[in-house]
Amino acid sequence: MSEVVILSQEEVKSCLSISDAIKAVTEAHKAFTKGRVELPPVVHLNVEKYRGEVDIKSGFVEDFGLIGTKIASGFYDNPKLGLPSGIAVIILMDLKTSIPLAIMDGTYITAIRTGAAGAVAASVLARKDSKRVGVIGAGTQARMQVLALKELFSLEQVKVYNIRETGSKKYASEMSQRLGIEVKAVSSAKEAVSDVDIVVTVTPSKKTLIMNEWIQEGVHINAIGADAPGKQELDPTIMKRAKIVVDSLKQCREIGEIQHALSQGLIKESDVHAEIGEILIGKKRGRTTEKEITLFDSTGMAVQDIAASNVVYQLAKKRGMGHLVKLL
Amino acid sequence: MSEVVILSQEEVKSCLSISDAIKAVTEAHKAFTKGRVELPPVVHLNVEKYRGEVDIKSGFVEDFGLIGTKIASGFYDNPKLGLPSGIAVIILMDLKTSIPLAIMDGTYITAIRTGAAGAVAASVLARKDSKRVGVIGAGTQARMQVLALKELFSLEQVKVYNIRETGSKKYASEMSQRLGIEVKAVSSAKEAVSDVDIVVTVTPSKKTLIMNEWIQEGVHINAIGADAPGKQELDPTIMKRAKIVVDSLKQCREIGEIQHALSQGLIKESDVHAEIGEILIGKKRGRTTEKEITLFDSTGMAVQDIAASNVVYQLAKKRGMGHLVKLL
Repeated sequence: MSEVVILSQEEVKSCLSISDAIKAVTEAHKAFTKGRVELPPVVHLNVEKYRGEVDIKSGFVEDFGLIGTKIASGFYDNPKLGLPSGIAVIILMDLKTSIPLAIMDGTYITAIRTGAAGAVAASVLARKDSKRVGVIGAGTQARMQVLALKELFSLEQVKVYNIRETGSKKYASEMSQRLGIEVKAVSSAKEAVSDVDIVVTVTPSKKTLIMNEWIQEGVHINAIGADAPGKQELDPTIMKRAKIVVDSLKQCREIGEIQHALSQGLIKESDVHAEIGEILIGKKRGRTTEKEITLFDSTGMAVQDIAASNVVYQLAKKRGMGHLVKLL
Repeated sequence: MSEVVILSQEEVKSCLSISDAIKAVTEAHKAFTKGRVELPPVVHLNVEKYRGEVDIKSGFVEDFGLIGTKIASGFYDNPKLGLPSGIAVIILMDLKTSIPLAIMDGTYITAIRTGAAGAVAASVLARKDSKRVGVIGAGTQARMQVLALKELFSLEQVKVYNIRETGSKKYASEMSQRLGIEVKAVSSAKEAVSDVDIVVTVTPSKKTLIMNEWIQEGVHINAIGADAPGKQELDPTIMKRAKIVVDSLKQCREIGEIQHALSQGLIKESDVHAEIGEILIGKKRGRTTEKEITLFDSTGMAVQDIAASNVVYQLAKKRGMGHLVKLL
């Protein structure tokens, strides 16, 4: 029996650039739309006693010949113990035999594939000349989203608003260095989303943070934060004005930003323009006018994890990286 | 960040005796009945193209302070490639922080905890003086069931019937050596279950193998094989005569042996006497007369996997076994 390779977060990072993650996520959405992917329902475990939750996302992708399982957690008291609040492990198995091939840190992969998904959506939904980005939230994913957008757009300015000012100030100083452009902490959500081309929302919010009247014509919105029942960042009436694109309709109607507009009857499922994969394979169109408002509802899919971890696995194998261990 | 320990099948085997597995499974069922366990629905992935299936069983157990996930597969063409047809991997994480603690082979754990579950059920449901066992099926689990029963009963004779005679003959010669008692391959299912004290069914069958009229008074039946929709080994009218005990009612009504008697209206859910944990904690009684027929419907639970893998993890840690690797 062959051995399984164990890859640490550091090794994973060295094997996955943002541009490769963008390519992998693009392939993931195309494979999904072509029906070459099987994704069972996400398992959700609530560990209320320790303010934690665990999601298990799994599936298989014929194009990559892989079965993938990601166990991802959010434990919100971990930082008090000096531990990361989000942890993930990914297990890849051969699709033909189920033999385990690789076990790797999935924390970084989750972060980078989510950033990549936002950039991929913006590439077909935002105006090509988008220069200014408004970000709500100042955590890891608020960083990833903008780093990935920078790969595809000639960004000139980023404004960031966070509920705690220390967070947005730290973000501004760190990200202005990393991006080499102006990154400004602003004092209201309204200011962050005014006079920008792309709005990115990346918070754990459960109520409206962005009002409809603040959103100007021609703007693209990446709605990243809402990925569980009850989570919400946008005034649901924005959905009535926007061309809505989702990663997976099946997921977004339950756990995405659109859950609220749907349950309030402001939109119907048929008002959702497309799943992003349908645009990427050319079956549907992305942005068609300068003035339309576009919105991408991102909930995160196992197929993105499998595609990104496959890039890591292939490159690590080529480089002879990781620990080989006998499991079976 | 602390390291995660990787344990191979060989290491797992050296850390888990049948008697320890019996103790662990007993604790698992007690914890489940006491509500100290959270078990989300089992994820089922069908890989039809390669005649394979993957089940993901997960949950957490407060008593052990662990979150556990088992990815278990059945790929029925694997033996042609010299690979095992069933493969499993178990991941244990700390319940308070979700930090991964151990990743181990779950193939052996699945086999031994299922055997242990049968023995635990028989310990409260079979007659104390049970000596003769009739087994239908001659695979790994047919071995495990009898090895585990041997721990708790003074067995004198085993009869085995298998659809392919080569299988039952191999079983008989191998198991008579391992058990040190008479193990006889017989030529019909009827012969296997006649004049025995305990009947064990362990096949992937989807139709009746054992007729009602073959089952004598006082017999205990361990119905192990049926663990998916459509699977069946027993004439459903047996359920009308038997005192029925299940591992988990929620699972058994969907995927266990009782699914057929329920859907045919032969029994109602209220005819199920108990979950095994209720008997083990003394809330309900097991066998009460010499003459009653008892039946244990086993579908396999994540809590059994977590309990058994915890024994392995604790002992391996004490012994300094396994590969320590950095994951996060």
